[in-house]
Amino acid sequence: MTPSLVLSIDAMGGDDAPDIVIDGVAHFLKGRRRPVSFLLHGDEARLKPLLERHGDLKSVCEIRHTESEVDMSAKPSEAVRRSRGSSMWNAVQSVKAGEAQVAVSAGNTGAFMAISKVILRMKPGVHRPAIAASWPAPDGFSTVLDVGANVELTPAQLVEFAVLGEAFHRAVHGVARPTVGLLNVGQEELKGSQMIRDADAMLREAGLDMDYRGFVEGDDISAGTTNVVVTDGFTGNIALKTAEGTARLVGGWLRESLTSSLLGKMAAALLSLGPLSTLRSKMDPRSVNGGVFLGLNGVVVKSHGGTDAIGYATSLRIALEMADSRFLSEIENNLARLSAHEAAFEDREGETA
Amino acid sequence: MTPSLVLSIDAMGGDDAPDIVIDGVAHFLKGRRRPVSFLLHGDEARLKPLLERHGDLKSVCEIRHTESEVDMSAKPSEAVRRSRGSSMWNAVQSVKAGEAQVAVSAGNTGAFMAISKVILRMKPGVHRPAIAASWPAPDGFSTVLDVGANVELTPAQLVEFAVLGEAFHRAVHGVARPTVGLLNVGQEELKGSQMIRDADAMLREAGLDMDYRGFVEGDDISAGTTNVVVTDGFTGNIALKTAEGTARLVGGWLRESLTSSLLGKMAAALLSLGPLSTLRSKMDPRSVNGGVFLGLNGVVVKSHGGTDAIGYATSLRIALEMADSRFLSEIENNLARLSAHEAAFEDREGETA
Repeated sequence: MTPSLVLSIDAMGGDDAPDIVIDGVAHFLKGRRRPVSFLLHGDEARLKPLLERHGDLKSVCEIRHTESEVDMSAKPSEAVRRSRGSSMWNAVQSVKAGEAQVAVSAGNTGAFMAISKVILRMKPGVHRPAIAASWPAPDGFSTVLDVGANVELTPAQLVEFAVLGEAFHRAVHGVARPTVGLLNVGQEELKGSQMIRDADAMLREAGLDMDYRGFVEGDDISAGTTNVVVTDGFTGNIALKTAEGTARLVGGWLRESLTSSLLGKMAAALLSLGPLSTLRSKMDPRSVNGGVFLGLNGVVVKSHGGTDAIGYATSLRIALEMADSRFLSEIENNLARLSAHEAAFEDREGETA
Repeated sequence: MTPSLVLSIDAMGGDDAPDIVIDGVAHFLKGRRRPVSFLLHGDEARLKPLLERHGDLKSVCEIRHTESEVDMSAKPSEAVRRSRGSSMWNAVQSVKAGEAQVAVSAGNTGAFMAISKVILRMKPGVHRPAIAASWPAPDGFSTVLDVGANVELTPAQLVEFAVLGEAFHRAVHGVARPTVGLLNVGQEELKGSQMIRDADAMLREAGLDMDYRGFVEGDDISAGTTNVVVTDGFTGNIALKTAEGTARLVGGWLRESLTSSLLGKMAAALLSLGPLSTLRSKMDPRSVNGGVFLGLNGVVVKSHGGTDAIGYATSLRIALEMADSRFLSEIENNLARLSAHEAAFEDREGETA
């Protein structure tokens, strides 16, 4: 077994793990020609029968037995202390050891971030890692970060997220010079907290050689007004889930309009011959499942805890794209530019504190 | 002219005022039998020709000439000082004077709130008013507040918003005992800031006789998991606009799937005979345009600044519903219950400060 790419999987993480994890791997591999292999960290007694169900998986999967797993409700600090040797810990450890290029888990987000920080360490110049999500937009994807790791932030940390997100977008979505916006409330409103206004001033004045476009609003994310949208983890997580909920509600309305009348059913029959499946896959939140941890010495991808095999397969696809991209070197380049301005930021932080 | 209901309109407020305001009034009146009349505050020289265009409006509209209007970019404090006699100020003043039941503006949100506070004053027990939005959900509407008035809050103010929102939902959406949730990030995450955890504890322990269900997430809003969703104005505003943007993106995809192929076009032709118009109106952000200011001695409705005549008509419909409802008395009942617990809250605030 000597393939070019290895993904390290926390097979026990997620609401319906390990079943959906193995089903997700199987779904991911369907029709894929490029050789990819998997390290499956978890309970061998449970994983083995699941692999038997998918005969073709055995040749590309290696089970790494673990005795424990991280609880979905564990606090991050607790997880770091108690989870050595767990499936999540070992999944990240395989990346650190160079056995795999990316670690993936659908388990406890806070614990996964804390464990990743301890094992992989942050890149020099990063104070807190962020989670980036790729968000559907009219011409491809927007990058939104942070979507869940950091609830309370300083202005300089938001600037750092801008730098990380811009590098991510260039590497993964192939835009040479991504535009960057800072999420805020409307122009005519109270213009957000002092924290956001300070971050805006820093981004304008820092001379970061970044195409910073100033404040954007919630509806700009799906409009793709800027390629990258920067916010704190609380707001970003709520925006992401609100968008998912809205897509689900609208999907329900659409289904209703295609099933509740004869005309609707006739239209649905026509649409089912083509256009509907495209629309359905675009509207499916599972098609964008996978948050990428930015700022670490290594690539880590988080799947939703409650996803199914199709959603899990999406997070594996994202993991593969990350492994293939110039992502880590782009981040390093951007951080080098940032470090030249760090002293200025720290002075400013001191002033506003 | 002695109709039962009078709406007081800031005819100069909004991106395309006064044109869309007058068109909105005309749209609102189409097919309506109940007698409603309007006080139109604004520049008579501009309003008169617009009324001429809609001959039937003249009998139910009275122009109240004003010389000035509030700038869309004015700061709230500035607006309060300088806007006496403006169209926005006088629109609210008519409610204070008892000439009208509701004031409506599509102008500067912060200024409209500040002016409303100065003229109408807050109800006893309210520290800050909030803006409530009615949000589409599978079985009707959810109430989300605050969606824009207050960026930084204390836990006790979030509790106050829960009390205001619960009364609003009962009065306007007719649910006898609305369920209430507090917007937060996921269960397995870091569970939000200390501020939100404190507000949660207060809501649980206060014995407010309210059906409080604890934390909800972004996707719970559109799912209608609780009738009322409480959050700060920054998060609420971003969630609302994110949902609008998502609906717009999905609408674009739907349009594409119905126009980009022959099958799609055939399906569209069938759908246009019925189901599509229902779907389209459900997905139209203009059908939910109108934020209601809660906590004042009077009813005030804010329309989006960038809306068109159809959206403006929606905010007038909401204004009418508010005027008809037991909204102010419901709020008073709830505030009376809250005041019994205020001392306890203040003790707690002191502890965490």
